[in-house]
Amino acid sequence: MHTIDAPDPTASPDDTGLDPARWDRLQALGHRMLDDMFEQLQTLRERPVWRPVPEEVARRLSVPLPRRGIGAEAAYEAYLRDVFPYPLGNTHPRFWGWVLGSGTPVGVLSELLAAAMNPNLSGLRSGAIHVERQVLAWLKEMLGYPATSSGLLLSGGSMANLVGLAVGATARAEFDVAAEGWAAAPRRPVVYASAETHFSVEKAVRTLGLGTDRLRYIPTDAEYRIDLAALDAAIEADRRAGLHPLALVGNAGTVNTGAFDDLERLADVAEREGLWFHVDAAFGAFAALDPELADRVRGLERADSLAFDLHKWLLVPVEAGAILVRHPEAQRAAFRVSGEYVSHVAGGIGKDSTEFAELGPQLTRGFRALKVWMSLKAHGADAYAALVRRNVEQARYLARRVTEHPQLELLAPVPLNVVNYRFDPGDLDGGGLDELNHDILVRLHEDGIAAPSHTRLGGRFALRVCITNHRTRRNDLDLLLRETVRLGADLLEGGEPASFS
Amino acid sequence: MHTIDAPDPTASPDDTGLDPARWDRLQALGHRMLDDMFEQLQTLRERPVWRPVPEEVARRLSVPLPRRGIGAEAAYEAYLRDVFPYPLGNTHPRFWGWVLGSGTPVGVLSELLAAAMNPNLSGLRSGAIHVERQVLAWLKEMLGYPATSSGLLLSGGSMANLVGLAVGATARAEFDVAAEGWAAAPRRPVVYASAETHFSVEKAVRTLGLGTDRLRYIPTDAEYRIDLAALDAAIEADRRAGLHPLALVGNAGTVNTGAFDDLERLADVAEREGLWFHVDAAFGAFAALDPELADRVRGLERADSLAFDLHKWLLVPVEAGAILVRHPEAQRAAFRVSGEYVSHVAGGIGKDSTEFAELGPQLTRGFRALKVWMSLKAHGADAYAALVRRNVEQARYLARRVTEHPQLELLAPVPLNVVNYRFDPGDLDGGGLDELNHDILVRLHEDGIAAPSHTRLGGRFALRVCITNHRTRRNDLDLLLRETVRLGADLLEGGEPASFS
Repeated sequence: MHTIDAPDPTASPDDTGLDPARWDRLQALGHRMLDDMFEQLQTLRERPVWRPVPEEVARRLSVPLPRRGIGAEAAYEAYLRDVFPYPLGNTHPRFWGWVLGSGTPVGVLSELLAAAMNPNLSGLRSGAIHVERQVLAWLKEMLGYPATSSGLLLSGGSMANLVGLAVGATARAEFDVAAEGWAAAPRRPVVYASAETHFSVEKAVRTLGLGTDRLRYIPTDAEYRIDLAALDAAIEADRRAGLHPLALVGNAGTVNTGAFDDLERLADVAEREGLWFHVDAAFGAFAALDPELADRVRGLERADSLAFDLHKWLLVPVEAGAILVRHPEAQRAAFRVSGEYVSHVAGGIGKDSTEFAELGPQLTRGFRALKVWMSLKAHGADAYAALVRRNVEQARYLARRVTEHPQLELLAPVPLNVVNYRFDPGDLDGGGLDELNHDILVRLHEDGIAAPSHTRLGGRFALRVCITNHRTRRNDLDLLLRETVRLGADLLEGGEPASFS
Repeated sequence: MHTIDAPDPTASPDDTGLDPARWDRLQALGHRMLDDMFEQLQTLRERPVWRPVPEEVARRLSVPLPRRGIGAEAAYEAYLRDVFPYPLGNTHPRFWGWVLGSGTPVGVLSELLAAAMNPNLSGLRSGAIHVERQVLAWLKEMLGYPATSSGLLLSGGSMANLVGLAVGATARAEFDVAAEGWAAAPRRPVVYASAETHFSVEKAVRTLGLGTDRLRYIPTDAEYRIDLAALDAAIEADRRAGLHPLALVGNAGTVNTGAFDDLERLADVAEREGLWFHVDAAFGAFAALDPELADRVRGLERADSLAFDLHKWLLVPVEAGAILVRHPEAQRAAFRVSGEYVSHVAGGIGKDSTEFAELGPQLTRGFRALKVWMSLKAHGADAYAALVRRNVEQARYLARRVTEHPQLELLAPVPLNVVNYRFDPGDLDGGGLDELNHDILVRLHEDGIAAPSHTRLGGRFALRVCITNHRTRRNDLDLLLRETVRLGADLLEGGEPASFS
């Protein structure tokens, strides 16, 4: 029949497109990259956690557009010289800043496979679609969320919060907001969340056109959990003022301290008041994996929408997060699509071409499901349960060590994996302590020793350690405290701390 | 000094975390994956473009959550059996459906490097940040967009349209919409776009709470370009009705036919009327690379915001797109962030921790910049210019071949790289032709021959070929037409077309 493989008489030398003229050379380069990567992963512990990008490197990364290519090998040399030596540090055993996963080798290799297949998971038919469906089913099973819910993998928690609230806003509006827009609202919408809520909720409220003035930040108790009486009062006041209580955000693991709102009680409030109940469980969702911790997330399964990350405690490389929604029709109503070019056909690639695109803002969607699928198959859910337990035990250990040390102060309860502390030599006022601990933080980073981040709790500058890191050992935490005290003392004496070597 | 490398007396066997117990074995697996991948990339042309996922495979991809891991090697075996054989097809030389890039080997290897470094590009300091800044500068230079503009890499065109319109809506609202929300609008906002506009604009308008009822789809001329008189009339009517003309969307390369609106004239209208001028240039932006095609995008540089994809004609693996905004302060106003845990410090990793997070909806952001940087360094911008020209010439060649064939009909002009045609044996009515061409499309896919997609133009079902594929050769296009005619004739006779082998 037709000659698929016949040489093309019209082929010119550049008809190889952007494939290499010499496959063997590019393949050898790929193997070299892999070896370099494995060497680096195995020697992480010997390296500084972080180092700044030198000026001359920054200059080489700020040059005009290359018109002519230098080839893959030379491009890799440039990468090795100017990019590779300056990682963020989150793959290192002593990185505990913000909430970043450390990644896993299996996750890294999965990204290679995904990029080579390079599918679009809008819904166009391929094996990849089945993998994403499978991963979503597994995530529901892991977290005890209803199997009948809809869901979507996306870039991370910020987008998951945006999608969850978009669905809720559409579902609980008192009119056809998709068609008419909020300008047609008979009453102005209000969203409730604790004062400890991640700022991505505020960004979502702004992006959705709801207005951040009516995002009510409800005070928290001494354990940083939403004050339920204050919440009730706020809802009542808003109703009296003629506003429309629309949605309630619960936190499962706050970013500052890892606190859990009482999700059961919040679900009751939402039910009683007709509010959409969205839960931000960015990393706290995974407490569900451990029997002792699972009570913290009781009520999670009642959320109308549930947002969480996979590049945090599931440790896959960025980007990966998920949104689950109890009401599939509501999710589709918020993001449905039209257009002749996506209309379905009876067979072939385009049969259900928008299965996933109609559940979120993206049309073209990458194969982030693969790294989750490979990770759960290779390691099993129990390994993640063990990791969560280990990180939580490490946090408790660190908190205990802080408490035992006369010059260290624990600044917040430790309900999960986040520890806030500071160095306090005993003879400084609040401002002086803040400045000192700020300087300790900068030295910990710039000397490459360890990477906590910081926050403020009750106005006090806190060194913040969030452990979502499978490479951390207890002696890494011992080292952190030893270095905190050493740097604190050195800074007080005005001496230059010894540099890391 | 402190003992970074001392053995940890507390280390238990599972203190390797999710790193392998045997690095050498995982490294060997990585090399095997690379070899399998290179073998597959080099033999794409010999393979079917696509094949459906068999029922038994789908069943194996729908099983309960694995509690215990099977290890990376067994997980890869499962991948090889159940996922790898069922790609979407867009890496194949004869895939021209929707608008999907074919990917490049350099792009694939870059994803491996990016996943191994695994940084978060919220703005936290690392080499990766410099790479994204560099890539954004290069993209501005490629497209002739002002160097003073702000910008952001994101998942693709849908998100770029959302971000561009979010910035525009915030900037051109007549009040503080971020704080008050659209419910406080004195006049209802209106957005204008041609009837050929991609549905992601409608999704963005819905998500932003603007209301799709006031997304005015302006008719197009015979060449699918926005009708400027109709646009003027619509704006005037809305002003008379007391509405607020807010934003205007221009198209540079429509999805159906590759049409370009007159961007200069649209920029004039926007300026005169005080509208935010957003341009969706998903793939059409790259016409700027070719001197002969560049006149099509004249006016692009006047857009207030400019959205385009990098996983289409820049061919990097999904996901990658970009938004550029002429007014950096406006972009920050729409997405600025707050929160103690992102407050800046004087040094270390968190010095400018939200540089990019305050320009878009994501906080955690992956290192998609690397694949763009490596691709432009390795291949050079001129290689992409040559590819754009070649794909456009291939589209013209295909259109000519269609026109010359007595049983094929060209259904739309071909201003760029999109060709719409159908098989017309001459004795069928409209409905019959639609059905026949639908069936031809399904057979082209299901027999693994070629992958155009489809659309409807003037109510007629069109086979749609969009060439953003560096692997396509002219004889691939010859084969498509030959097979279209063969399948059409076979289907008319009621016979089963020969299967692909």
